[in-house]
Amino acid sequence: MFITLEGPEGSGKSSQIPALAQYLEAQGYRVLCTREPGGTSIGDQIRAVLTSMDNPELLPRTEILLFLAARAQLVAQVIRPALREGKVVLCDRYGDSTLAYQGYGHGLDLNSLRAMLNFATEGLKPDLTLLMDLDIKTGLARKKSIDEWNRLDAYEVSFHERVRAGYLQLAEEEPERWQRVDASKPKDEVQTMLRQIVLQRLKDKI
Amino acid sequence: MFITLEGPEGSGKSSQIPALAQYLEAQGYRVLCTREPGGTSIGDQIRAVLTSMDNPELLPRTEILLFLAARAQLVAQVIRPALREGKVVLCDRYGDSTLAYQGYGHGLDLNSLRAMLNFATEGLKPDLTLLMDLDIKTGLARKKSIDEWNRLDAYEVSFHERVRAGYLQLAEEEPERWQRVDASKPKDEVQTMLRQIVLQRLKDKI
Repeated sequence: MFITLEGPEGSGKSSQIPALAQYLEAQGYRVLCTREPGGTSIGDQIRAVLTSMDNPELLPRTEILLFLAARAQLVAQVIRPALREGKVVLCDRYGDSTLAYQGYGHGLDLNSLRAMLNFATEGLKPDLTLLMDLDIKTGLARKKSIDEWNRLDAYEVSFHERVRAGYLQLAEEEPERWQRVDASKPKDEVQTMLRQIVLQRLKDKI
Repeated sequence: MFITLEGPEGSGKSSQIPALAQYLEAQGYRVLCTREPGGTSIGDQIRAVLTSMDNPELLPRTEILLFLAARAQLVAQVIRPALREGKVVLCDRYGDSTLAYQGYGHGLDLNSLRAMLNFATEGLKPDLTLLMDLDIKTGLARKKSIDEWNRLDAYEVSFHERVRAGYLQLAEEEPERWQRVDASKPKDEVQTMLRQIVLQRLKDKI
């Protein structure tokens, strides 16, 4: 079972995943956690280019191709082997980030993006996508306060608004795959919701 | 006028370009030389990932997306501005390398590759492409002898044979854009042929 977490900056994905993984393991599942755009040695090298403050000239088209390169490597080298071994894969961001950020956020053509995603992942789609939905200003303020500000956050607020609206649109188009979680709630409550949703889905799948 | 040089490993592109540029400048043209996958600061960072001997796990899909990322940056940041200024742009490898190496060489779908190329370059195609054609074994032996052996050359000879056949096929499909040059000839003769072809094309364009 392939599960992705999506959501705007500061929605708390990265901090929720370890606790969720621990819980699933306690329930007897074998779990692999990974994240985009890193997750492999090559992905980490690409991530370094993407997040460097020394690369202000990085263009949207370059950005998306770099994300896709890291993803291609991650899917073939990490995600597919883990799924073949019967593991639950929890991935911090995946293809929907491309559609939300580069498509809805930067205004690049969604059909081209989908075709390239398909190429990069050889068609691998998540079984379940958890949307950590959050008011943009709350999210950005959280990120700043925890000192994770980097080049990717330097875009203006309206960009992040478009990203959020894009996520909600994507969730609406595929309701059977997406589950929205209110990420403005306290951390423990969010974790409880995530556990319930994932466990239910795992049980449904058997 | 946008001119690209293509050809297999060791065909002498890189060593011919400076002399060709110098000649064109002596004829009164303003010339910009650039190369793939570098040519920009970001492109050079990507090139480092592509050519590192520490990345043997780099997959074909990742490779092509990295090349495309470097190209997107190069086109927008370097090539288009130079063309707007009326310069002759000489580029060492461009989109046809993707089709020849990743398409014909690695067997990836040519239509997907063309769509992604179009995305990365926003549709910019060369006015003239010079194919430095050469017997594969001669080319690889030349590269080895000049100590330029790197990860990209480690593929087997049959791969390079497919690449060469791909180039010849591409040239056949668009004869008005391509000019084949026999790169097995002595360096000076090759340079003379390149000068004649380019100068004629520049004069035809006026």
